Amino acid sequence: MSLPSHVRLVEVGPRDGLQNEKQPVSVADKVRLVDGLSAAGLGYIEVGSFVSPKWVPQMAGSAEVFAGIEQRTGVTYAALTPNLKGLEAAIEAGVKEVAVFAAASESFSQRNINCSIADSLVRFEPVMELAQQRGIRVRGYVSCVLGCPYDGDVSPHQVAAVAFALQAMGCYEISLGDTIGVGTAGNVRQLFEVVGRDVPRERLAGHFHDTYGQALANIYASLLEGVAVFDSSVAGLGGCPYAKGATGNVASEDVVYLLDGLGIETGVDLSRLIEAGQRISRTLGRETASRVARARSVAQ
Amino acid sequence: MSLPSHVRLVEVGPRDGLQNEKQPVSVADKVRLVDGLSAAGLGYIEVGSFVSPKWVPQMAGSAEVFAGIEQRTGVTYAALTPNLKGLEAAIEAGVKEVAVFAAASESFSQRNINCSIADSLVRFEPVMELAQQRGIRVRGYVSCVLGCPYDGDVSPHQVAAVAFALQAMGCYEISLGDTIGVGTAGNVRQLFEVVGRDVPRERLAGHFHDTYGQALANIYASLLEGVAVFDSSVAGLGGCPYAKGATGNVASEDVVYLLDGLGIETGVDLSRLIEAGQRISRTLGRETASRVARARSVAQ
Repeated sequence: MSLPSHVRLVEVGPRDGLQNEKQPVSVADKVRLVDGLSAAGLGYIEVGSFVSPKWVPQMAGSAEVFAGIEQRTGVTYAALTPNLKGLEAAIEAGVKEVAVFAAASESFSQRNINCSIADSLVRFEPVMELAQQRGIRVRGYVSCVLGCPYDGDVSPHQVAAVAFALQAMGCYEISLGDTIGVGTAGNVRQLFEVVGRDVPRERLAGHFHDTYGQALANIYASLLEGVAVFDSSVAGLGGCPYAKGATGNVASEDVVYLLDGLGIETGVDLSRLIEAGQRISRTLGRETASRVARARSVAQ
Repeated sequence: MSLPSHVRLVEVGPRDGLQNEKQPVSVADKVRLVDGLSAAGLGYIEVGSFVSPKWVPQMAGSAEVFAGIEQRTGVTYAALTPNLKGLEAAIEAGVKEVAVFAAASESFSQRNINCSIADSLVRFEPVMELAQQRGIRVRGYVSCVLGCPYDGDVSPHQVAAVAFALQAMGCYEISLGDTIGVGTAGNVRQLFEVVGRDVPRERLAGHFHDTYGQALANIYASLLEGVAVFDSSVAGLGGCPYAKGATGNVASEDVVYLLDGLGIETGVDLSRLIEAGQRISRTLGRETASRVARARSVAQ
């Protein structure tokens, strides 16, 4: 057993999390959330998304959020930019790092972004080109890496092909997302083994959803495969714990608790992270989805 | 990585689970639960407890439950018997397998059963003696193996001493319980490594609580240590998902989902297990704590 000594957490709560919360959140509350997360020691925060507000109303005002947050030294504040228009808007807002996404499943790609996987990659070319010109780093997401709501099983070789393409286009890191949370430790290990042949493991990240309660087991399995970057969402934002079949990202607090227990450094102060999560949960008027936060709130 | 090909699940929902549920459950509902669990393919079910109803009101009527259930061939129906009086009552009810328990932490032992660990072991001597005379197998539980609500950390060597004592007294299997759910994959592996020096791994079982969301990661870590017996509770009985800091056992459905995903045989039909869990959850008037059951109920 060999585990990494340090893990980098990519906090996706303000973007991937809030985007899936129905209740609108004000710019001021988003700014408070992002500042709370950086104060807790998170070194990478996905702050917002530059997309049409018609498509994703919750992400309107991302430029204002970027303008409002305290930009701490050493912290990366990133934005999702699915197209050139989005990247241009992000650059105007002073964003230094962006992310693009593709699906590992054809049906998901068609239904989610209305084009084939190949076409989606072609669409990113001008984004990658402009980003390179401006010295902006681009992270890539691959969704449905362990299963698709329409196609069912997804081959790790298909995931490898998409991850390799994103890397070849210039993405410095590829985050593999189990969008519907169906994966278990066995196929997680197989996934990283197969994709790791085409993309070095130090360029891979794991992005797990807790729909079937498997996220932490999957993260532990990933650690055993040498993966040392994980996406997570404070308070489990993006999936209400009381909604049937909540499909949210794994809660950052629960991931930090696991990593603390394993003696793996993250630079994150769990208590301050829990505070930030409780604050945004109160704003949303619901209880946190983090089991650690819930357990701690009783213990105190 | 080497995983066991087969895992034996010890279903503790009807006893350890219901015991911690406030709402009284009728004998008929308990019988229906046990029969539903055996029909789902579970080979070991902890049916009830022979203790004073003054102490554990929910376990009153365990003899009636044993009389009412369908006793399927090949299924073990067990009872908790903390003392000689309990064992005698269990024998009268036709019980063929029983369990005793000790704590790994002195403070927990004192506060939970009002005596030292050593004294608790002495008290089991007549139980072990009578059980041996009657050809009744005895399983041992050790609680607080990864932490104590009063003492904090618990040394794996202390756990090993208690587990070894229970084995020496005649327990054929020792279940190590993370009663407050604080353990993570790292100290789980260390625990089995240390205890495994004194008690063979094929005689050890893992009993995890999901208080901090770590149970499945801990089970995966245990599997990697060669442990192939796990306790779990259908629908996560024993800890309400909506109560703050729910401290219930890991849900059997979630464990079976993990093991199915790993290609490890359990003999359990997940769909029928979910049905049994949904039925008892409706009886209790609350939603299941199994994430798999919740996710499936949306998917269907």
